[in-house]
Amino acid sequence: MLAAAKPSDWQPLDPEKTLYMQLPAGRVVIQLAPQFAPRAVANIKTLVRAHYFDGLAIERVQDNFVTQWGDIDHQKSLGAAEHSVPAEFIVSSTEVPFTALPDPDTYAPEVGFSGSFPVARDPKIERAWLVHCYGMVGVGRDDDVDSGNGSELYAVIGQAPRQLDRNITLVGRVVQGMDLLAALPRGKAALGFYTKNGPRIPIESMRVAADVPQAQRTPLSVLRTDTRTFQDVIESRRNRRDPWYKVPAGRIDVCNIPIPVRSALKEAQPRPGQ
Amino acid sequence: MLAAAKPSDWQPLDPEKTLYMQLPAGRVVIQLAPQFAPRAVANIKTLVRAHYFDGLAIERVQDNFVTQWGDIDHQKSLGAAEHSVPAEFIVSSTEVPFTALPDPDTYAPEVGFSGSFPVARDPKIERAWLVHCYGMVGVGRDDDVDSGNGSELYAVIGQAPRQLDRNITLVGRVVQGMDLLAALPRGKAALGFYTKNGPRIPIESMRVAADVPQAQRTPLSVLRTDTRTFQDVIESRRNRRDPWYKVPAGRIDVCNIPIPVRSALKEAQPRPGQ
Repeated sequence: MLAAAKPSDWQPLDPEKTLYMQLPAGRVVIQLAPQFAPRAVANIKTLVRAHYFDGLAIERVQDNFVTQWGDIDHQKSLGAAEHSVPAEFIVSSTEVPFTALPDPDTYAPEVGFSGSFPVARDPKIERAWLVHCYGMVGVGRDDDVDSGNGSELYAVIGQAPRQLDRNITLVGRVVQGMDLLAALPRGKAALGFYTKNGPRIPIESMRVAADVPQAQRTPLSVLRTDTRTFQDVIESRRNRRDPWYKVPAGRIDVCNIPIPVRSALKEAQPRPGQ
Repeated sequence: MLAAAKPSDWQPLDPEKTLYMQLPAGRVVIQLAPQFAPRAVANIKTLVRAHYFDGLAIERVQDNFVTQWGDIDHQKSLGAAEHSVPAEFIVSSTEVPFTALPDPDTYAPEVGFSGSFPVARDPKIERAWLVHCYGMVGVGRDDDVDSGNGSELYAVIGQAPRQLDRNITLVGRVVQGMDLLAALPRGKAALGFYTKNGPRIPIESMRVAADVPQAQRTPLSVLRTDTRTFQDVIESRRNRRDPWYKVPAGRIDVCNIPIPVRSALKEAQPRPGQ
């Protein structure tokens, strides 16, 4: 069905809303969601543009939970960035598009997609929020809901920890390089934190894609979720028709539908016969 | 609440229903579920007792899906083991205990726990089945539902692929060493299969715990799911009360409740004051 998608079904990543995190093993590409967390995203971009993360490291890898990186000791100057950013856990659901899934969800009255992100919605209170699926990226905080500032970030590497929804600010999702965060050695200290004895996996650099020369960018496009093509993707995941499957589930969890991503270069390369 | 558990709340692993898989990085402990898949479990034990897996390797690590091991080329003799084992996807729900979760599930009419395993149940047809949570172990098969024989096994390393439920035989779950399977390099070939060029992660040995000298066993106990203590665990996961959480979910997914496992040695070591 993706082969039948119209070129307009694919949305190239906006370089102003894309981060590259360079690890020794490769580049992690993060798509930002300023429509859900404008202040946190702005603060993270301020930190990134000051090269705040360069030379910091992976701090924590907790099996079936999160990989976290940044400044564990809060020793590095935040420069021009805010020291605390108010919680951005929910938004008005009238402000964001929403493609609903037809199936029930354990945690929320409605789930679906908004732009390139999995979301939940409560029509009664007209609120929507990003949900903690695999690969989602959020802002670490202390007990105070306004204590996060983006200097510590995490990505989900296991079963969706949906209990975090509406408790912490999500700012985007990993669209390429998730394996680089999920295959890391688990930390031996409590909560999966790395000990002083290692391992040490440095962040070589973190950049806003717009600040990287065009030739060095990773050109990716994401399938628009408000398209017929994505509806077909949803249906194909709800009811698997390959010969291997004998009992199609007829249902799907919002975190079991990976939003398709492809190299944007393909758009410029018409295939034979097309 | 675990500190308040009675000794009888903990069930030591049955060495006849426990497998040890030795990888270069350590031991993976698998608790078997013969009550759900008696024939597959018996066949796997036959293979293990013939040292079938020794010297085979990890075949496949697909990010956010499964780690799979065994004989990818089907070249090794199965010896006395069956070449195909009939599908064991569901059981009669009257034959197995069931502790229900109160919360709705996307995929099944009811979910909960049976013994040490996450299960789903359909009261209308009186059937129950193991569900594909993180760490569950199953039997690879081809398109024919009866084509699995246990010579290829997989463990879930990502978001619960619940679409597999009732489509493939689950035989147990990893109770220790999950990180050894989840932190492996992802395969570069299609579906995460490793290429001929590696990596090669050998299975040094696979044994039934009962066949291992007592002193070399890993003494683990699992919290019984039919206890008040486990009800308290469920409730503590449905509504997190730590100061960090501001909006308790009030709900929980069956795959978001790790069944507690502890060293059985603790049982023999009364703490001061007790």
